[in-house]
Amino acid sequence: MALTVVGSIAFDAVKTPFGERERMLGGAAVHFSLAASFFTEVRPVGPVGEDFGAEQFAVLENRGVLTDDVERVPGGQSFFWRGRYEYDLNVAHTEDTQLGVFGEFEPKLSEAARCADTLFLANIQPDLQRQVRAQCGAASFSGLDSMNLWIETAKDSLLAAIAEVDCLVVNDAEIRMLTGESNLARAARAVMELGPRAVVAKQGEYGAALFTEEGYFALPGFPLEDVRDPTGAGDSFAGGFFGYLDGLEGEVDDGELRRAMGYGTVLASFNVEEFGTERVSRLTREEIDERFEALRRMTQFESLPA
Amino acid sequence: MALTVVGSIAFDAVKTPFGERERMLGGAAVHFSLAASFFTEVRPVGPVGEDFGAEQFAVLENRGVLTDDVERVPGGQSFFWRGRYEYDLNVAHTEDTQLGVFGEFEPKLSEAARCADTLFLANIQPDLQRQVRAQCGAASFSGLDSMNLWIETAKDSLLAAIAEVDCLVVNDAEIRMLTGESNLARAARAVMELGPRAVVAKQGEYGAALFTEEGYFALPGFPLEDVRDPTGAGDSFAGGFFGYLDGLEGEVDDGELRRAMGYGTVLASFNVEEFGTERVSRLTREEIDERFEALRRMTQFESLPA
Repeated sequence: MALTVVGSIAFDAVKTPFGERERMLGGAAVHFSLAASFFTEVRPVGPVGEDFGAEQFAVLENRGVLTDDVERVPGGQSFFWRGRYEYDLNVAHTEDTQLGVFGEFEPKLSEAARCADTLFLANIQPDLQRQVRAQCGAASFSGLDSMNLWIETAKDSLLAAIAEVDCLVVNDAEIRMLTGESNLARAARAVMELGPRAVVAKQGEYGAALFTEEGYFALPGFPLEDVRDPTGAGDSFAGGFFGYLDGLEGEVDDGELRRAMGYGTVLASFNVEEFGTERVSRLTREEIDERFEALRRMTQFESLPA
Repeated sequence: MALTVVGSIAFDAVKTPFGERERMLGGAAVHFSLAASFFTEVRPVGPVGEDFGAEQFAVLENRGVLTDDVERVPGGQSFFWRGRYEYDLNVAHTEDTQLGVFGEFEPKLSEAARCADTLFLANIQPDLQRQVRAQCGAASFSGLDSMNLWIETAKDSLLAAIAEVDCLVVNDAEIRMLTGESNLARAARAVMELGPRAVVAKQGEYGAALFTEEGYFALPGFPLEDVRDPTGAGDSFAGGFFGYLDGLEGEVDDGELRRAMGYGTVLASFNVEEFGTERVSRLTREEIDERFEALRRMTQFESLPA
C-alpha cells in the first residue's frame, strides 16, 4: 500500500506557556507523514526552500518517509509560521505567516506519488487540492482537510474539492461554517450529501467524532497531564487515521474507520506532549499500540482489569 | 434505596431559535428528580411559592417523585429564571432571575429525606449544601454541583462542601476555574485531593468525562439532529447518574460509575429534545434502555450489528 499527502512543509516558531522554539520543522504534510509512517509507506508532496536542508530531510527519512516528491526550489524560502498559545492551549494566535515557495506552488506529482492507494489533501488552497486529486486517479480512499480562510474566500472550489473525496476531516466549527448548520449531526449529513462517505469532526481536546452512513462514533482526546505544544495535533490525527487505513489489507469498513479514529487520537496525543515533531520522531509502534489499548479501555462501559 | 436532592424548584421562561415558553416547570431539583425517577425513589427538597400548584406537583407525582419535602411557603413566589439561547445553543443569556422564596431558604429535611442512601446537592449556595449534607449523615454516596458564581463569591465554603461529598459534577470550565489549573486531568486530580473519589466534568454537547482513582472514562453527547431547549440538561444528566447508582444493589465501583455516565448522557439527551420537562415527563424506561444500548454501540471500537 502507499499513501500520498500534499500540504505544507514548513518551519514553525512557536511559543506556549511551557516553552518556545524559534525555528523548528513543521507543516501539515510533515506532521501527517511522521504519524502515518508507523503504518505504511508515505510520500509527502510539497515545495521547500533552500533553507530546508539535510537536517530536516533526515527527520522524515529516519522514519522511512519517502522524500522524492519534496520539491526544493532554488533561491526560495520555506513556508514559515509563527504562533503563540495562551495558557488555555485551545486559544492560538498567528503572529506571522510567510508563504515563501508555497505562494507559487504547482503540484507536479511523480509517477509513484500518482499511483498511491490512499491520498490526503492537507489544508491548502482548494483548487490545488483538486489538481492533486485529478493526478491521483488510482486512489481508492481519499481525504481532505481545510480551514475557515478557504470557506470564506474560495467556498465553491472547496465544495467541489470535497465532492471528490471519500472523507472530510476538519474542525467541528468549520463543518458548521461550511454548511451554515449549527447542529453537528445535520451539518455532517449535509457534507455527506455532497459526496464523502465519512466526515470526521475534530474537536480539539474533546476528541473527534465520526459520521458515516452506518452510524456515529466518537472518541475523547487522550487525557494528558502534560501538553506542551498543540501545533500539528490535527495533522498527526489525520496521519494516524489515513496511515492506519492505508496499511490495511482489506477494505475500509465501519469497524476499520473506528479503529482509525483510535490511531488518529493516539498519534495526536503523542504529538502534543512535546514541541513540533520532537515526540513523534522518536516514538515506537509499541508505544502507539499500548496507548491505543489504553484508549480502548477508557472508552468501554465495563472497566477492564489493567 | 432512596435518593434525596436539594436544589431549585422553579418556573422558567425560555426562548431558543426553535420556540419559546413563557412559564414552564423547571429548576435543578425538578429536572434531576424526573430523570432519577426511572431508577429509584427520589425526594426533592426545596421551597416553592403559592404560585406552585397542583399542575406542577402532578408532573412530579406522575413520575412517582415523592413531594413531601417540597415546602410551600404561604404568600411566597417560586424561583423564576428567564433565559435565551443563541442559534448556537451552547451560548445562553440569563435575562432575569427572581429568587423568590429561595432567598430565605433554610433546609429542614424530613426524617425520610435525612435517611436517604444517596444525596445530591444541586447548585445552591455552598453553606446551604453543607447544612443539608450534615443532616444526611446516612448517605453512603453523595454528589455536588455548583457554578461560577459560588467559585467567585464563596470559594472557601464551596471547597469545604466539596470535601464532604464523594463526587463532584460540574462543567469542565468550572473545574478549571475552581482549581486554577487549565489542564483538565490535573484539575480533576486537584479536586480528588480535596476529598471526592470521583469527578465528572460536564462538557455540554461534547459529553462528559469521569475521573476516578482507577482511571478515566469519557462519553460523547448523544448525537441528536433536533435539539430544542438545553435547559436542565446538566441536571438531567446528574439525575440519571445518581438515580442509576442509587438503584443498584451492590456497591458503586468503577464499572457502575461508567454505566451511570451512560444513563446520565441518555437522560440529558432526552431532556434537550423538547422544552423544559416535556420530553422526560412522558419518557419510558424502555426508551432509556434502547438509547443506552445505542450509545454503547456508538462508543465501541468494533461496530456491532444493528
